Amino acid sequence: MAITGDQSFLKHINRMALIRLIRGRPGWSRADLAECTGLTKSTVSQLVQELIDEGWLAEDDALVTGSIGRRPTPLRLDDKRLAMIGVDLTLGSVQVVATALTGEVVASSEQKLASSAVADVIGAVAQRAAEVIAEVSRVQGRRVLGLGIGVPGPVHEGSGVLHHAANLDWHNVPVRSLLQQALGELGWPQLPVFLQRRAASAALGEVEFATTTVEEPLLFIHLGKTIGAGVFVGGRLLSGHGGFAGDVGHLQLVPDGPQCICGRRGCADTLTSLAAMSARLGVSDEEFVARVQAGDEAACAAAREGGAYLASLIHQLWLTFDPAQIVLGGIASRLGRDYVGLALQVLQERTANSRLQPPPVSVARFGTRAVAIGATALVFNQLVRPV
Amino acid sequence: MAITGDQSFLKHINRMALIRLIRGRPGWSRADLAECTGLTKSTVSQLVQELIDEGWLAEDDALVTGSIGRRPTPLRLDDKRLAMIGVDLTLGSVQVVATALTGEVVASSEQKLASSAVADVIGAVAQRAAEVIAEVSRVQGRRVLGLGIGVPGPVHEGSGVLHHAANLDWHNVPVRSLLQQALGELGWPQLPVFLQRRAASAALGEVEFATTTVEEPLLFIHLGKTIGAGVFVGGRLLSGHGGFAGDVGHLQLVPDGPQCICGRRGCADTLTSLAAMSARLGVSDEEFVARVQAGDEAACAAAREGGAYLASLIHQLWLTFDPAQIVLGGIASRLGRDYVGLALQVLQERTANSRLQPPPVSVARFGTRAVAIGATALVFNQLVRPV
Repeated sequence: MAITGDQSFLKHINRMALIRLIRGRPGWSRADLAECTGLTKSTVSQLVQELIDEGWLAEDDALVTGSIGRRPTPLRLDDKRLAMIGVDLTLGSVQVVATALTGEVVASSEQKLASSAVADVIGAVAQRAAEVIAEVSRVQGRRVLGLGIGVPGPVHEGSGVLHHAANLDWHNVPVRSLLQQALGELGWPQLPVFLQRRAASAALGEVEFATTTVEEPLLFIHLGKTIGAGVFVGGRLLSGHGGFAGDVGHLQLVPDGPQCICGRRGCADTLTSLAAMSARLGVSDEEFVARVQAGDEAACAAAREGGAYLASLIHQLWLTFDPAQIVLGGIASRLGRDYVGLALQVLQERTANSRLQPPPVSVARFGTRAVAIGATALVFNQLVRPV
Repeated sequence: MAITGDQSFLKHINRMALIRLIRGRPGWSRADLAECTGLTKSTVSQLVQELIDEGWLAEDDALVTGSIGRRPTPLRLDDKRLAMIGVDLTLGSVQVVATALTGEVVASSEQKLASSAVADVIGAVAQRAAEVIAEVSRVQGRRVLGLGIGVPGPVHEGSGVLHHAANLDWHNVPVRSLLQQALGELGWPQLPVFLQRRAASAALGEVEFATTTVEEPLLFIHLGKTIGAGVFVGGRLLSGHGGFAGDVGHLQLVPDGPQCICGRRGCADTLTSLAAMSARLGVSDEEFVARVQAGDEAACAAAREGGAYLASLIHQLWLTFDPAQIVLGGIASRLGRDYVGLALQVLQERTANSRLQPPPVSVARFGTRAVAIGATALVFNQLVRPV
């Protein structure tokens, strides 16, 4: 809203701005920051000192310049003293990572889950997270800023409640409070916990830990057991009114297609998800991926069939969001030529006659850790909001 | 970005904040503004005086309160001294309105267009706009802030170029500069001109001239000769990387459906647009609407067929954007029971078994003037940016 006279609010805004400026322009000095922001040099110096004291920023050796007088000290994000925890939660597994402010992974842990009962899953997440927190805080001496968790369904960010997750058969689960309580019992009370859909977490990881400029909108399509999308636009994640935006696995591609768990027919999930393709062969997801990678003909044919539908899905999302870039992640994004490759080829063919070319499509920077690392980006994004 | 020491920038931000605050809370006094913003009373008084002098704000009579001392003077948007021009441009017609800051229409003009040649169309738009500008400025004594134009295709907002409009057969037309030049020749030089897709303009009109709180995302579906959508989310219009976002008339609803001008088959435009439905009967759009309204059986059957596909389209957009509210506009939104009514009924049936209910669906507040009035909202939105 308006610029206010509330000094602590202004200070908070300015701190966030300085952190983001230095992240984008490592090597800038206090003088550069003062010039860019219009803040006085003494205000910048005071804020930078605070941020150094708290572990956000670090100084590099002063550059040798030809000029006389005090040399500007280059600043950068400190990658040694703080850590953010990220969790990727899905049916059958939990993956936990800790990253530095820069997104670099500094610890990790994972576990297969036999049960999908809420208490069992939350307990396992808390155990693995506590293990990683202990590693980074006790061994590496880092201060943990918070924990982000990517969950397989829409969330209400304010309350930290997972609305539903079809594959876990969870409904209205207060993930944040359950997890905070479990972490408290393990000796890590009052840790800030942030929730987001898995695909949205992954999208945020691409943005917050980008090494080059991110063009908006960025569309992340998560091709896992089921399909989801995350969109970053206008400096934020598109979450929708109830946290459901991007639930694109239920976009209908074929009106009379296969029956979906949502009650409709021909949803993208029934045609081009990993679950749908492996079900066609009657094998597990892992087996399906292995067979496609080994060149098994039946598996490759199923992948190609799925790939053609993936082209349709990408086309729909392209028309709807007009993304500047599309990133594909999830296990199925590793099904190279016969799935992703074919989809992109079909997309090119379909759009060859139009005056428009689809945006560049890339593969998730953090591979199979895209959601977990993206969940640490959620911590950064919530604590250091874009200003 | 960061809070800067640049006083003129700060002042601009504060002016915009005060205008928006008073619009949302008519009757607030200078003291209320100071309390809410944290600005000093003298700063608020100075800025309010400027805004009154320039025609943005007006004072009402002071309230009689029981307390002693100077009574607070209620402020409101001034609806008498400024005007914004809005144009709805589509194949075959141009509609121009002028609104007060409040969105109230204070002048209008329209014209059928026989030609769709760029020079003819721009000439007609400029003529009708000049007529309306003369009315509001010379007769009503208003200062004209700018002109917004809703065009039937994606735009590049920065350059003011219409990328393409299939129904006009226009490609890369510099609408802003052509229109500014034509207006200059008619005696109205240097008027700020803003472009947006028609559906996006209409969406903005719903937001900027709302009388109650607008929940985000707001999804406006424009059901005209063809179909488009505008999404307002995160305090701004979703325009996409190249201005194409919301081009939902080309979402494919049936893989092997009718051939579309885009080269694909089964796009929403081929199944549920007014053009598609009237073509099925071999009559004009106007005739089709008249026949449906008269209860003609063949026309109503075509409307119902289209309505079922409209349900599919709304469902897709609902899943993708998770809107808090959906607004239907355009001529076809007047096809009541057999089209919009049926679509909403089908949507309800399809989602009855899920745990989710579709968001409230309403009809465009400004009816057939939704795009033109929305285009005046574009002027407001660009000059008084949300802060």
